[in-house]
Amino acid sequence: MKPPAGERAAIALLARLLRAAPPGHGVELGIGDDAAVLRAGAERWVWTIDACIEGVHFDLRYLDLVDVGYRSLMAAASDLAAMGAAPIGALAELGLPKAATPRAVRAIGRGQALAAKAIGCPVIGGNLSRSTEISVVTTVIGRAKRPLLRRGARAGDDLYLVGEVGLAAFGLELLRRQRRVQSASERSAIAAWRRPLARIRDGLGLARSAHAAIDVSDGLAGDAEHVARASGVRLVLEASALEALLGSAMTRAMRHRGLDPLGLALAGGEDYALLIAARRAPKRSTRIGRVERGRGVVIEHADGTRARWTGGGFDHLR
Amino acid sequence: MKPPAGERAAIALLARLLRAAPPGHGVELGIGDDAAVLRAGAERWVWTIDACIEGVHFDLRYLDLVDVGYRSLMAAASDLAAMGAAPIGALAELGLPKAATPRAVRAIGRGQALAAKAIGCPVIGGNLSRSTEISVVTTVIGRAKRPLLRRGARAGDDLYLVGEVGLAAFGLELLRRQRRVQSASERSAIAAWRRPLARIRDGLGLARSAHAAIDVSDGLAGDAEHVARASGVRLVLEASALEALLGSAMTRAMRHRGLDPLGLALAGGEDYALLIAARRAPKRSTRIGRVERGRGVVIEHADGTRARWTGGGFDHLR
Repeated sequence: MKPPAGERAAIALLARLLRAAPPGHGVELGIGDDAAVLRAGAERWVWTIDACIEGVHFDLRYLDLVDVGYRSLMAAASDLAAMGAAPIGALAELGLPKAATPRAVRAIGRGQALAAKAIGCPVIGGNLSRSTEISVVTTVIGRAKRPLLRRGARAGDDLYLVGEVGLAAFGLELLRRQRRVQSASERSAIAAWRRPLARIRDGLGLARSAHAAIDVSDGLAGDAEHVARASGVRLVLEASALEALLGSAMTRAMRHRGLDPLGLALAGGEDYALLIAARRAPKRSTRIGRVERGRGVVIEHADGTRARWTGGGFDHLR
Repeated sequence: MKPPAGERAAIALLARLLRAAPPGHGVELGIGDDAAVLRAGAERWVWTIDACIEGVHFDLRYLDLVDVGYRSLMAAASDLAAMGAAPIGALAELGLPKAATPRAVRAIGRGQALAAKAIGCPVIGGNLSRSTEISVVTTVIGRAKRPLLRRGARAGDDLYLVGEVGLAAFGLELLRRQRRVQSASERSAIAAWRRPLARIRDGLGLARSAHAAIDVSDGLAGDAEHVARASGVRLVLEASALEALLGSAMTRAMRHRGLDPLGLALAGGEDYALLIAARRAPKRSTRIGRVERGRGVVIEHADGTRARWTGGGFDHLR
């Protein structure tokens, strides 16, 4: 449910139109968070949909169809992780060109099955359609006692990250340049892009302590902006903490290819880390900043200078 | 969840692969019926996904984007109707080409909102992606005390139909020929194709008396075959009953265009009627045949001759 910034107007338009038929009995939360929330008996169920489309979300020069199946389920399930939900199952709509072979179907299904096993989210049904490009649209449902939303961050919270940022974008860039992979860092970046992990287990541990969470699918700064807007606060990301999180070997590997590590960490998407606002550190997390009164997202450098996120990049503040 | 016959092998392949990660807690029924069935507290929830893709499911020469939004939700919700479920809500994944205007988004959203209101199935969330062709993938959830499956038909049951068959296919054919519409029958056929109705209310009335049901999306004979296979029985469709259901004005209108009314009724899809196997007539239904021991689908003519459905047409039996 996280549109590229340019499509926000379209989403707002749709939301307005669709509210004409208001959610009825059993719908607790509709358009606007990582997932919708339904009341199922005494439980809360969270429900989301996500697309993986050839030429938009992936390019078969850089991954195979097993990866496509794998990534499609992980990307959808990552929204469940961000809400602290345990997966119940998934349905997948496969769009396949006329020329698709049984071998292609098998590869996608194998990838889905691998991902399903890794995070305990079985694919329990779906649909096949003919289409021009290969597409996998996945809907997932999970249960959560208290679904964690984007809107709970408060001034005084710290910001934590579970997982990596910037690696998947680095991996994709390496694949695009078609250079020979030279180091363990490069190999792990490519793996991060091809086989991301939805942080389901980490998400389940957040219910008690966290105030807000989001999964980082579009890039840390942009997703932080969603939290800032939903919560009515400012998120301060600390550059030194992000560089420490990347580590010196990865930082060196990125620089070796002429890339800016901090830029990749802030704007590179598809790592599916969890960004969390909380008073104390969730398990296996790294502190990367804090929440202030105000609005928007700023990056704070070690010398105290700040730059404000503008959607496409940072504007240095006077 | 009803693939064209040619894709059955692909579905079987996927089902085999995906059963490697078996459905866990809360999944009552996975791949194979109109929808998956989940246990939600004391309730049963049914859940399905359906695609509407430009060039595959629709052609913008024959309908506008309001129709596309409308049809996409109705087609998905029709699976709920077949299982006797009351809609809770829908999520929609919109795939839009780069060139899509806000006007296009508004039209699709208006169509979805109209359909949502007509059947009480609010669209509560979704996602936007860029894609080559316009696509709307819709997932819907509904609740049912006792979800009606394809597999409950028994020898001795009668077959009933709620709604129309053959009209949508006739309407689409008229649009393709781009002839001037000449009669009320032709107008209603075109409306049947552009604005189908998911028979939610009728589906809700079936829970007590019906043994099996399916929504007729791919054509009556083909969908009857799904019921026959799932139930291990033979379905006998009576030609005279189907001709009576079409009515003399519609039959004349079809013949006037050189089309075979019975052929349209048996093979024409997208009317979203409900085909029901039961011991007594559901409300607002028409009896169109019966269930026997055996297998497959046969059409029985008034003179007692029979023909067997072979997937693409009928083979007259010796």
